[in-house]
Amino acid sequence: MTRSHIKIRVLVTGGTFDKEYNELTGALFFKDSHVSEMLELGRCGLDVEVHRLMMIDSTEMTDADREVIRRSCTDAFDERVVITHGTDTMTDTARYLGERIHDQTIVLTGAMVPYTFGSSDGLFNLGSALAFAQALPHGVYVVMNGRCFEWNDVRKNKATGRFEELTT
Amino acid sequence: MTRSHIKIRVLVTGGTFDKEYNELTGALFFKDSHVSEMLELGRCGLDVEVHRLMMIDSTEMTDADREVIRRSCTDAFDERVVITHGTDTMTDTARYLGERIHDQTIVLTGAMVPYTFGSSDGLFNLGSALAFAQALPHGVYVVMNGRCFEWNDVRKNKATGRFEELTT
Amino acid sequence: MTRSHIKIRVLVTGGTFDKEYNELTGALFFKDSHVSEMLELGRCGLDVEVHRLMMIDSTEMTDADREVIRRSCTDAFDERVVITHGTDTMTDTARYLGERIHDQTIVLTGAMVPYTFGSSDGLFNLGSALAFAQALPHGVYVVMNGRCFEWNDVRKNKATGRFEELTT
Amino acid sequence: MTRSHIKIRVLVTGGTFDKEYNELTGALFFKDSHVSEMLELGRCGLDVEVHRLMMIDSTEMTDADREVIRRSCTDAFDERVVITHGTDTMTDTARYLGERIHDQTIVLTGAMVPYTFGSSDGLFNLGSALAFAQALPHGVYVVMNGRCFEWNDVRKNKATGRFEELTT
Repeated sequence: MTRSHIKIRVLVTGGTFDKEYNELTGALFFKDSHVSEMLELGRCGLDVEVHRLMMIDSTEMTDADREVIRRSCTDAFDERVVITHGTDTMTDTARYLGERIHDQTIVLTGAMVPYTFGSSDGLFNLGSALAFAQALPHGVYVVMNGRCFEWNDVRKNKATGRFEELTT
Repeated sequence: MTRSHIKIRVLVTGGTFDKEYNELTGALFFKDSHVSEMLELGRCGLDVEVHRLMMIDSTEMTDADREVIRRSCTDAFDERVVITHGTDTMTDTARYLGERIHDQTIVLTGAMVPYTFGSSDGLFNLGSALAFAQALPHGVYVVMNGRCFEWNDVRKNKATGRFEELTT
Repeated sequence: MTRSHIKIRVLVTGGTFDKEYNELTGALFFKDSHVSEMLELGRCGLDVEVHRLMMIDSTEMTDADREVIRRSCTDAFDERVVITHGTDTMTDTARYLGERIHDQTIVLTGAMVPYTFGSSDGLFNLGSALAFAQALPHGVYVVMNGRCFEWNDVRKNKATGRFEELTT
Repeated sequence: MTRSHIKIRVLVTGGTFDKEYNELTGALFFKDSHVSEMLELGRCGLDVEVHRLMMIDSTEMTDADREVIRRSCTDAFDERVVITHGTDTMTDTARYLGERIHDQTIVLTGAMVPYTFGSSDGLFNLGSALAFAQALPHGVYVVMNGRCFEWNDVRKNKATGRFEELTT
């Protein structure tokens, strides 16, 4: 089922995933994306094409940014797309895409802790996201905590930092 | 599709995944499994039950061991099983299970580098394996390098350390 | 020269050294000190006694806090003391102690990046600080960047994050 | 006392310090030295010159190799030298140098666990070694476990992996 000619586009938008620690100011900031390095660490054998669309905190993401993401999804000939995204508004972007894209498999994922910090969940999430992107039918999904949620039935529980269905 | 009542049994058999470095002898050895710690690092929100069946190098795995694994799969009421396994004979165990189990989704995974070493692919593979175990129909699969192979169409390329289809 | 009966008191005051990443808020905060864990990682064979005096950002350190540190130095029967401290006001505390303590070897050290983040200089600095504390005559010193500075000839260069002599 | 014009020569000879894990064979091997990377991680501000003399397991070190090390010490105009070395015969090399060099400060150090593995003591030891090399009078020393031993009063306890005085 996973044929080697499956191609996955990975769209990088920033988020905690790619944040760095500025040792002069103590603040977090963006420099380069770590996604390619993470794919290498995972010995990823998929045909993946990484595009860096933006490097922003998801609290700053506007609908104009979401439109850039949407266009980068649909412009692609690739049917399958993984999007790295900050967790704060991940479900908003999922909704934006879910209402507009119907013929692709789109998976949004992110991390609670930056990849460069020891305790990051980023590599685990990236592994899950790429797997769900290959195995699931068309639709827009949020993949966090090893789980997969449909775009219209997911929220981030801000008290626990976990993602959950609307109905729980 | 991923409902919270999905339950996954994780069977630990050892393999590079769980090896440790003995600083007195310089040899690799097994102590405890790191799978639970890895699930925690991934902030895994799935209903997972970890069973440690054995802690062995997969080059030492016999068909008697494989029968223990098979029984632990079928004894489970859980339809979905992830097995951590050494990479050297992972495809042999996949074949053993593939010929005998038809009504469950079984995913074997492992790592090229021990989890406790900095450069491990283990967390990425575990994330992928749990995702494929949720999303795929009944069958026995090998999940490595972000990809998923059916049990009867996979081999480990010993020269590259990568898994590939028989027909490539 | 390093006899096993040398005893070193380690005073923990907080600082970047011991900061953690709060994955719910994205802010840095203090939980427990990592100094004991770091000594274990270094397989430290010294007779070390760790005291946690406070867990604060050094920008918040007052002279009342410095007096607590001074008293903990002089109350000790141990001639040698290592103090972990935030880098922002490390030289202020060094001056406070340097003007008041003359019969002990006191070494202040810290880190530019928290120990729990992958890229921390903390373990290197702790190793250096313990070594200088053993080898140097009485005095108060700042140990950062592999170097040792006397309390009255050191400043933090805020542009580079490096410590240097006043006269450079 | 630590003036910025102090220059330290670091001689790399291999040892566990610099070993890597070969993910195809499961064996440990040497590729490049990590010493420069470690100095960078420690934000080392010393004037250090790294020379890679050899990359061998210290169990394979011969007196011919030790003579190469001795010559590289004495050829240097630098008074202070740190040598990274495997722990198994570190005290033999210390003795070889201690009987022959009297006008330099030479510090041998190493690691019980490779730097690239998460649990390495290497960075701690390198920090200690550079500090003792700056602070101690002429002599040949072994620096491990945060402690400093004179070349003629040290052995590795093979049961514990710790270094100790001969007389304990």
